Amino acid sequence: MPLSDLTLDECHAYRSTATEPPGFDEFWSRARSSGGPADFVEVSTSLKTLRVYDVRFPGHAEQPVRGWFVTPAGADGPLPCVVEFPGYNGGRGLPEDCLLYASAGYAHLFIDVRGQGSGWRSGDTEDHEPEGTGPQHPGFMTRGILDPEKHFYRRVMTDAVRAVHAARAHPLVDPTRVAVAGVSQGGGLALAVAGLVPDLAAVSADVPFLCDMRRGAERAATGPYLEIGGYLKVHRDRVETVFATLGHFDGVHFARRATAPALFSAALMDTTCPPSTVFGAYHNYAGPKRIEVYPFNGHEGGETVQHAERLRFFADLLHP
Amino acid sequence: MPLSDLTLDECHAYRSTATEPPGFDEFWSRARSSGGPADFVEVSTSLKTLRVYDVRFPGHAEQPVRGWFVTPAGADGPLPCVVEFPGYNGGRGLPEDCLLYASAGYAHLFIDVRGQGSGWRSGDTEDHEPEGTGPQHPGFMTRGILDPEKHFYRRVMTDAVRAVHAARAHPLVDPTRVAVAGVSQGGGLALAVAGLVPDLAAVSADVPFLCDMRRGAERAATGPYLEIGGYLKVHRDRVETVFATLGHFDGVHFARRATAPALFSAALMDTTCPPSTVFGAYHNYAGPKRIEVYPFNGHEGGETVQHAERLRFFADLLHP
Amino acid sequence: MPLSDLTLDECHAYRSTATEPPGFDEFWSRARSSGGPADFVEVSTSLKTLRVYDVRFPGHAEQPVRGWFVTPAGADGPLPCVVEFPGYNGGRGLPEDCLLYASAGYAHLFIDVRGQGSGWRSGDTEDHEPEGTGPQHPGFMTRGILDPEKHFYRRVMTDAVRAVHAARAHPLVDPTRVAVAGVSQGGGLALAVAGLVPDLAAVSADVPFLCDMRRGAERAATGPYLEIGGYLKVHRDRVETVFATLGHFDGVHFARRATAPALFSAALMDTTCPPSTVFGAYHNYAGPKRIEVYPFNGHEGGETVQHAERLRFFADLLHP
Amino acid sequence: MPLSDLTLDECHAYRSTATEPPGFDEFWSRARSSGGPADFVEVSTSLKTLRVYDVRFPGHAEQPVRGWFVTPAGADGPLPCVVEFPGYNGGRGLPEDCLLYASAGYAHLFIDVRGQGSGWRSGDTEDHEPEGTGPQHPGFMTRGILDPEKHFYRRVMTDAVRAVHAARAHPLVDPTRVAVAGVSQGGGLALAVAGLVPDLAAVSADVPFLCDMRRGAERAATGPYLEIGGYLKVHRDRVETVFATLGHFDGVHFARRATAPALFSAALMDTTCPPSTVFGAYHNYAGPKRIEVYPFNGHEGGETVQHAERLRFFADLLHP
Amino acid sequence: MPLSDLTLDECHAYRSTATEPPGFDEFWSRARSSGGPADFVEVSTSLKTLRVYDVRFPGHAEQPVRGWFVTPAGADGPLPCVVEFPGYNGGRGLPEDCLLYASAGYAHLFIDVRGQGSGWRSGDTEDHEPEGTGPQHPGFMTRGILDPEKHFYRRVMTDAVRAVHAARAHPLVDPTRVAVAGVSQGGGLALAVAGLVPDLAAVSADVPFLCDMRRGAERAATGPYLEIGGYLKVHRDRVETVFATLGHFDGVHFARRATAPALFSAALMDTTCPPSTVFGAYHNYAGPKRIEVYPFNGHEGGETVQHAERLRFFADLLHP
Amino acid sequence: MPLSDLTLDECHAYRSTATEPPGFDEFWSRARSSGGPADFVEVSTSLKTLRVYDVRFPGHAEQPVRGWFVTPAGADGPLPCVVEFPGYNGGRGLPEDCLLYASAGYAHLFIDVRGQGSGWRSGDTEDHEPEGTGPQHPGFMTRGILDPEKHFYRRVMTDAVRAVHAARAHPLVDPTRVAVAGVSQGGGLALAVAGLVPDLAAVSADVPFLCDMRRGAERAATGPYLEIGGYLKVHRDRVETVFATLGHFDGVHFARRATAPALFSAALMDTTCPPSTVFGAYHNYAGPKRIEVYPFNGHEGGETVQHAERLRFFADLLHP
Repeated sequence: MPLSDLTLDECHAYRSTATEPPGFDEFWSRARSSGGPADFVEVSTSLKTLRVYDVRFPGHAEQPVRGWFVTPAGADGPLPCVVEFPGYNGGRGLPEDCLLYASAGYAHLFIDVRGQGSGWRSGDTEDHEPEGTGPQHPGFMTRGILDPEKHFYRRVMTDAVRAVHAARAHPLVDPTRVAVAGVSQGGGLALAVAGLVPDLAAVSADVPFLCDMRRGAERAATGPYLEIGGYLKVHRDRVETVFATLGHFDGVHFARRATAPALFSAALMDTTCPPSTVFGAYHNYAGPKRIEVYPFNGHEGGETVQHAERLRFFADLLHP
Repeated sequence: MPLSDLTLDECHAYRSTATEPPGFDEFWSRARSSGGPADFVEVSTSLKTLRVYDVRFPGHAEQPVRGWFVTPAGADGPLPCVVEFPGYNGGRGLPEDCLLYASAGYAHLFIDVRGQGSGWRSGDTEDHEPEGTGPQHPGFMTRGILDPEKHFYRRVMTDAVRAVHAARAHPLVDPTRVAVAGVSQGGGLALAVAGLVPDLAAVSADVPFLCDMRRGAERAATGPYLEIGGYLKVHRDRVETVFATLGHFDGVHFARRATAPALFSAALMDTTCPPSTVFGAYHNYAGPKRIEVYPFNGHEGGETVQHAERLRFFADLLHP
Repeated sequence: MPLSDLTLDECHAYRSTATEPPGFDEFWSRARSSGGPADFVEVSTSLKTLRVYDVRFPGHAEQPVRGWFVTPAGADGPLPCVVEFPGYNGGRGLPEDCLLYASAGYAHLFIDVRGQGSGWRSGDTEDHEPEGTGPQHPGFMTRGILDPEKHFYRRVMTDAVRAVHAARAHPLVDPTRVAVAGVSQGGGLALAVAGLVPDLAAVSADVPFLCDMRRGAERAATGPYLEIGGYLKVHRDRVETVFATLGHFDGVHFARRATAPALFSAALMDTTCPPSTVFGAYHNYAGPKRIEVYPFNGHEGGETVQHAERLRFFADLLHP
Repeated sequence: MPLSDLTLDECHAYRSTATEPPGFDEFWSRARSSGGPADFVEVSTSLKTLRVYDVRFPGHAEQPVRGWFVTPAGADGPLPCVVEFPGYNGGRGLPEDCLLYASAGYAHLFIDVRGQGSGWRSGDTEDHEPEGTGPQHPGFMTRGILDPEKHFYRRVMTDAVRAVHAARAHPLVDPTRVAVAGVSQGGGLALAVAGLVPDLAAVSADVPFLCDMRRGAERAATGPYLEIGGYLKVHRDRVETVFATLGHFDGVHFARRATAPALFSAALMDTTCPPSTVFGAYHNYAGPKRIEVYPFNGHEGGETVQHAERLRFFADLLHP
Repeated sequence: MPLSDLTLDECHAYRSTATEPPGFDEFWSRARSSGGPADFVEVSTSLKTLRVYDVRFPGHAEQPVRGWFVTPAGADGPLPCVVEFPGYNGGRGLPEDCLLYASAGYAHLFIDVRGQGSGWRSGDTEDHEPEGTGPQHPGFMTRGILDPEKHFYRRVMTDAVRAVHAARAHPLVDPTRVAVAGVSQGGGLALAVAGLVPDLAAVSADVPFLCDMRRGAERAATGPYLEIGGYLKVHRDRVETVFATLGHFDGVHFARRATAPALFSAALMDTTCPPSTVFGAYHNYAGPKRIEVYPFNGHEGGETVQHAERLRFFADLLHP
Repeated sequence: MPLSDLTLDECHAYRSTATEPPGFDEFWSRARSSGGPADFVEVSTSLKTLRVYDVRFPGHAEQPVRGWFVTPAGADGPLPCVVEFPGYNGGRGLPEDCLLYASAGYAHLFIDVRGQGSGWRSGDTEDHEPEGTGPQHPGFMTRGILDPEKHFYRRVMTDAVRAVHAARAHPLVDPTRVAVAGVSQGGGLALAVAGLVPDLAAVSADVPFLCDMRRGAERAATGPYLEIGGYLKVHRDRVETVFATLGHFDGVHFARRATAPALFSAALMDTTCPPSTVFGAYHNYAGPKRIEVYPFNGHEGGETVQHAERLRFFADLLHP
């Protein structure tokens, strides 16, 4: 694939022109309130160096969200903790998918995104839409797209915030040493949490989705940003409404509210989350920050190379 | 596109091996009960020879379903009526999309499929999933896929049955002269209604979807049957459950219960609804039947040529 | 699809650099002369609110061109009339394809494009090339490409002009209230007629083809502009000749001569008729004008949404 | 590409089921009559070992057909001659494209196919359709498709027969040592000539097109057989008419009338001229015959490997 | 993707017709001889529950092959050991890519395939071709394709055998409890080792490549089997030579010599390693065996679901 | 294909920013030293006007390189000579592939590129990598990519230089009238030779590859430049090393050292060798120069049209 978005120099110069919807903070103030207590049930696996718990915590509207909580087998804490979110339409998968952070000495909470987990790694969390959410383009981007209160990411980002609460409440976890992390959609959720939850120790957002979304919808050639255009192709009179709704979930606005040290990454040949959209969020990010750029990668970005970089970044801040 | 499914001779010899789920009739007995009364509100358009009404009738769980009801401008009835259902992810669109049947002297009720109408023609009907329906592959096929009671088409087919009730209750409509019709998903819904509603005057199902679905999931190269395989690619242990659920919505089983005269059509180069799956339903159809075959068409099938054939077929039976 | 042509702001600023071929008006002066009388033979259909006539009028070189003439069933005129031209390689199809304008109270003349009607809707009009027209790339764009006198669109645009004459001569039609309309190629033909026929009441050109053709040939990624490049890929020494010929048929030049009020539409993700080429004609248009822009659509443009807009636009000017 | 047609064993067992149209020989009897004399004008090139002539001979309806006639520079004859026909939408190109046979000691006549030569190598021959030939799908297969008298290949095959006459009449050529040859469409034309012209010395048809055409239209995934299906996709009621017309130009029928020794070739992964269609003609071929099979090639077939084989095959029969 | 190879029933009935090259055992007898001692150098990582060693052992021609050796952090053995091989053009990657088996209580040796590791996970092992290996199609399949002694997999399979020797010689490893495993190419290498090395405790081959290779070359639509056809498309006269060479590396022949209990997996929609080719090896496998079939998966096969199954299969046999 | 690189005006203004690696001339000084004598063995073919020799000359490290040497049949010299290099992964093919230059009065030496000749025309020359060259992406671009001494084109360009030596030493060749030529990779090699070998009479480089390679790797959408990005996608930390190595083989640096008159060609829709990269070399070219531009061609460029132009260009300088 050739370069199809801005060059690196142009990315450094680019600034998002997205405008924040009025009432953004008020909209999100409810999400910050804590949900109820989480359940952690140890499960039997073939793993010997790690201990795995099936987690269920109350997310948006107290609906149960599932995840895996994994720790080093003999740990008696307090441990630093990494809360991680999956990429688009992935789920928590199997415990064997969640080995890295616990092997590196962290408590690790990997949660489902509700309704997802049927695209590349299975999920186990139902999504409830009791109010009905209107016609939608296949996928998740346009569920409830006409009203921020009903939008899919209203529920998911609330779940993500509450996942941090759940992690902090676990006896093995040191609540002052909690990081959030994710790739693609997971990176977008990590940025949302970074803007909504105070006192995080670190944030890692790789090739994050859900950033500078109008530009994403106009420039992406692959991936879920296309769902927005797919919807607007039919609902031609809803362009402003759609982007007004999405503005409530856009990483460029969350980034302005974040304070924790952050590690970003972008890939210059990424056609799913074009690098300019990542830089849109990065330039707005208010905390200490650094960005890794992969010049010849697409949306896979840095993969394990970036994960290893992330481990070093977290180690400096969370002292596993 | 070359032929990729059975040849015409092989289609004539093919019989579906799908087995009917136990309790099929009991499962559907509730859907037959009538919902409440429908609203018909005349709307202003640029049309002069036709009169258009915005329809809202209670569908599954009394949730409102939208449609257009169109009649010849000066008609004072009783009129024969065609109840029509849209193809996958289409909706009722605009009144200007619904000219044919009223211009030919019928009352015409064209309804939305709930939640759809963002793929090629807009819809206006919300879908409600109060119970939560589990992880799903983008699209509609795997919503509630693990339980027939929660499956998307449980709600949609109930809506379709109730659309016939709504039409029959309208003062301009002669309830003994009601036909159902549709292309692709619309054809699948017409077959479902043909199996669930007695005393229909005619049925028209063109390149119907939702027929012989396991074969569809194994043989289709394009279109929504792929959602089933997309889900099972991740949820590898759910193959039997998935097809047990889908069996409740499969045209090969509805066809056995149908009695009204039916006009089918199939296209031999159709990779979305492979012709063998259409013949699977056709061979099972218990009423008088005929099938048009388009040897060099894909899923577009006969288009206006078939619509004109349909008008002739209906004219013989409904006397507009 | 991402944006691949100019942004909307850039489209507004863009001006075509195409130069008009010398002798343009002289070349076209013959086409303006009227052909002979048209035949209108009523045909039997299943339609009840409309009356349909099979039309045959003398086009270029008096060769017969076919169309449908449709009116409200009981109309006794005088009626305003919409003359409409099909998109690339479509034809008049069946009468059931031509319901909209007559249902809205107009006389409606929908004509074939000679030789076309084998791509998506059938046509019935032969094209004659008595002189022989040289090697050509598959399709219609390069037929007779080396000489404007022999070029395919020389014949077709003459037919289009004469279709207006035929319509105006019909006793049911009010010749002062005639509009021309079309989508894609049909829009290009409408612009040609707008530049060649005086006293039109209105013009509607949606995502018009045949505008700013060199830019089209350099920027289009899909559709018939590619035929030009396909020809020049082989006939490498004919670049200037080819564009000199095409200049006689380019909407950017017809637009300068037009005076009737016009409604344009463009789609920003259109890779068949890139929006810049549409704006190239729009900016040159000499009469009153307005343009609808669809930011997330491809070449399908506004579809029924735009057709409904067109009905409102025509209603103000033609009073059906 | 995987195998997508019959395996080699199945090809050997396969027999075409195409039925010959009535009056086939009568239809072609006129083509056998000789046209007028050809012009040979020597042209200046950069070539030193070869002499090149620009040829113009009267083809169908005495319309001029162009070609190159190339001989070894010092030859004073009589020479054996190879008459060669281009692949689909190619033309005679430049003299530098026609080096092989003259370098091997033959007189070589390479002719245009009228109207073609804009797809991959340029042609210079106009096609005339004085009668008009009806709507057509882009390309050449469906020009005049409703009437064998008007069909494109009626003219082209007549040209091909007359090319042999023109070659035989040249003073340098020994008329008893004339072979015909071609690849793809050129192979189809060579078979047609083999069935229409007596006393040929040899025939070479590589991956021939225009053989067993209904099977071709149903099985080809690429190339011009798709034009037939493209036309029938719109003109759904013309299936029998179309194949009745094409039967007059089908190599499976010409093959039965051929007597000259023939070398065929087929490629098992050919999706443009599926190997079964080549074997359909091969099995019918009435003269001495041999076939080379390329198991891992697509429509490119044997290329120069086959050309070298052809040179050896011709050498045995024509003694250059 | 639809089914494009045999159905499951047909796979069960299918038997490979590949014939074993003469001298197969003699050819491989040298590979069985042990190489020299391996180096294990502990490396520093962010991992805390595992210990990682950079491995270098003498492979074919004593050239150094690299890998990671990973153990539970506190293990003092003897441990059962899994020797694993990467998929096509992957390498050992980073230590963070190799967490599963050591976390489950095994010593784990993951080795590079020489020259590979530039397609999806990086490798660090050079390949040496001192003799020169002739023209080749891009990739690895046709390196040295004309001579089994020079073929790429001659070297790679020797490396794989010696990797088992290296593992068995490590003081932490119990040499009686060694399993081999791999996915795709890794599965093909595991089968090769299973046929060449006695006394293995278990074998796991998922969607194995390098099995029933002529059928693979004729049926695969994606992946490295296409390199074989790519080469033969140019080297048309080498078909028999190529498959004679490849016969020395074909899993269908190694399988006949294997004795260790084996777990296979196949995916019915796999177009890279068609399921019939996997069953070709499976049916020949001489030891105890079982196969998991994924009916709606492509070449990704069972992924973590199968890895978890593999852990259970190994646990029963290796007692970690 | 639309334009996807710079427009022609932008190409004229563009200058490459590639920086020359230090020690470039020293690196190449060894290649200039002559190898040993070449063998020319006449071969029997079907050709009569030409004489063909199988050539074998010592290339890099004295490894034998194969080619065809073709002359007019009766020539007794001294003849001007064209030394030609094949495009990527092509080889010398068969003698019948090499007719043009000898037919035009030249001695013609067409050589293999070692290891290639399995992509579109067969080659017969082995490549030796005695030192081992590290992991590589399929293809040839990244063989030995980490060290200029080990890189594939180190060997190939040395071969190309020595091919000129071999030609000059042949008794029929006038060593003062030697030109080098090639298309794509062949053009890149011609430029390399032009920069390394003094006293050439002419140079022809059509749509040359291996020019301005970083830009090529960032902008090409097809072809072998993609191998560079494919490698760097995995070996993310090697970007600078890779381009430092490739700098030793980049036409933009060879061009600065060239003095012979040169004919370039570029194609504006070329996505394999984007026109900007060709102009990057062209603008740097230090000798007399001219460039043909094909505005509507892709990587096929001018084909025979350009070959004929080349013949005229050579005729003026080499006097055949």
